[in-house]
Amino acid sequence: MVITNGKKILKLSECEAVYASCEFLLRYITGLEAENGCVVVDKTGTTLYTDKRYIEAAEKFFQGSDVSAVLYKQSELLERLAKYKKVGISFNWTPHIEYLALEKADVKTENIDKQLAVAMGVKNEWELENIQKACTIAERAFLKLLPEIKEGMTESEVAALLEYNMRTLGAQGTSFATIVAFGAHAAVPHHETGATKLKFGDEILIDFGCRVNGYCSDITRTFLFGDDGKHEEFKKAYAAVLKAHELVKENAKSGMTGIEVDAIAREYLTAQGYGQLFTHSLGHGIGLNVHEFPSVSPKGENVLEDNMVFSDEPGVYVAGEYGIRIEDTVTLRKGKVKSFMSETDRNLIIL
Amino acid sequence: MVITNGKKILKLSECEAVYASCEFLLRYITGLEAENGCVVVDKTGTTLYTDKRYIEAAEKFFQGSDVSAVLYKQSELLERLAKYKKVGISFNWTPHIEYLALEKADVKTENIDKQLAVAMGVKNEWELENIQKACTIAERAFLKLLPEIKEGMTESEVAALLEYNMRTLGAQGTSFATIVAFGAHAAVPHHETGATKLKFGDEILIDFGCRVNGYCSDITRTFLFGDDGKHEEFKKAYAAVLKAHELVKENAKSGMTGIEVDAIAREYLTAQGYGQLFTHSLGHGIGLNVHEFPSVSPKGENVLEDNMVFSDEPGVYVAGEYGIRIEDTVTLRKGKVKSFMSETDRNLIIL
Repeated sequence: MVITNGKKILKLSECEAVYASCEFLLRYITGLEAENGCVVVDKTGTTLYTDKRYIEAAEKFFQGSDVSAVLYKQSELLERLAKYKKVGISFNWTPHIEYLALEKADVKTENIDKQLAVAMGVKNEWELENIQKACTIAERAFLKLLPEIKEGMTESEVAALLEYNMRTLGAQGTSFATIVAFGAHAAVPHHETGATKLKFGDEILIDFGCRVNGYCSDITRTFLFGDDGKHEEFKKAYAAVLKAHELVKENAKSGMTGIEVDAIAREYLTAQGYGQLFTHSLGHGIGLNVHEFPSVSPKGENVLEDNMVFSDEPGVYVAGEYGIRIEDTVTLRKGKVKSFMSETDRNLIIL
Repeated sequence: MVITNGKKILKLSECEAVYASCEFLLRYITGLEAENGCVVVDKTGTTLYTDKRYIEAAEKFFQGSDVSAVLYKQSELLERLAKYKKVGISFNWTPHIEYLALEKADVKTENIDKQLAVAMGVKNEWELENIQKACTIAERAFLKLLPEIKEGMTESEVAALLEYNMRTLGAQGTSFATIVAFGAHAAVPHHETGATKLKFGDEILIDFGCRVNGYCSDITRTFLFGDDGKHEEFKKAYAAVLKAHELVKENAKSGMTGIEVDAIAREYLTAQGYGQLFTHSLGHGIGLNVHEFPSVSPKGENVLEDNMVFSDEPGVYVAGEYGIRIEDTVTLRKGKVKSFMSETDRNLIIL
């Protein structure tokens, strides 16, 4: 199926044409995965300019849609763009060198970063289906992983197994570098997965995700590899993080700002004495990029709407001791939170 | 070990300072993997500006080097940059929106893309070691894969196994999306790995690579899954591609241009009647990016020097029939080609 998000962006941009060349925008606008190329949208339709390696596959892919594939020639492209009164481009995703080439060719550009964020923030059904698939694969890969975890395995080995499970379940690859953290490593929110070996009684934090048709999932689970009786503080904090995670699911509503949704978790954790230990935002938008609009943080003034997709990931971190994060990828449907994750337990697992 | 490529770039740039914010340049200049931040190099040393998630790890990492880690504050950074007479930046890797912020703050910038390409093109010993490790892991993962390939497996399953092997052998992840192509799929140089099942007599083309400390390997092997007696043309072409691949290793020399090295393979394949079927460049530079300077193609005017790293990957493609590519990652040492690959056979394997 070809999604033609070109018209949606063109309309929001209020420009005569829209131009983009970065990979994820090519994919968003045309539905096609192409490493190299650029795209022009105007009222007559969408044109993908690409090289001979992709042209044949692209033509086949676009049959029956309003997208056409054309061999890229810079001079022809610039000549075409120069004829428009106003061409919308992303100033954030256009390299300065490319901007200079447009400017030199008298292309009259306007920044449409805000419109792009808004357009991409609200997902269509096809996008939601892909995210759902990516989330289900991630959950099932995790469930398959649990009995495969053995004492003495390294963080990297656990990550390799999990990634293998996602791949064999149909994922294209990971949506970001898998984080596997044993013991106190979990206290570092962006721990680099390494050669540390798993010991009885260790906590395990795994933050991971995969891609389906380019769309990402993002999930974190924290659990114990056996209980050595030294996890009283951890368990108390786990219960608080879980409650914060669930309060967001129960109380976040379409129409609230990112600030308000973040506050649901933050106020609860603060009341429980963990406020200072919740050192990051509650969540971020998820789509073709694993971090995108909207922001669900103390600075997230954006309003959350139906069919936006974001993470619900409160966390508590005590350096040198433990770290806890519980994360689902969720959306808003008919005003309420709906999680894409339903197969894995959020209650504390003790292997 | 901390590599301080900052001084090298500063010298080549002929600017008072160098500024960069994209991930691979942060890594190149400071040696540290940081998802978020920016770096300033001047004659006093190198400063990494990053957020609180990375600052502690960065300070530890930089101990004993001339790199320091500082908490990012945009106003302070821009104020500092505005004081330099000339700040070298990459116009290719700086988003236009960031350029506008620099301009607004009266930062006097100059494009140093050419100097960056030259600096990064010639690798130091530490970089060569990482590329060697990434190549050895890729080869060993492939050797481990061969007996694991069974009839009925899908392209994606083969890719998943190969990636798992690389990961467990110590890779951080893939250097690009693994290409596994069965049968006539191999005729598409950028085939998207899919659900096609392996049959007896199929040819298999695998183009893959992994990363070690950010540095990439890139390798392609083409072989047969059993011989059904229908591969006469394929075998003839395979011998020609292999000869072209080897002629490059024997005859390419430091001081030649990319055009000249490409011509070694292209002229041979043309003389054998395959010229029109060799539809891409002979090679590309490899480092922190899997495609970078120098170019080894009919347009590659750059001179190849000792310690540059690039691919030697001639190919022959017949649509609907077969595709052959044989690729090593190689470098130039004392004027001559030295391959990073020594463990896998380039002669035709028939499983």
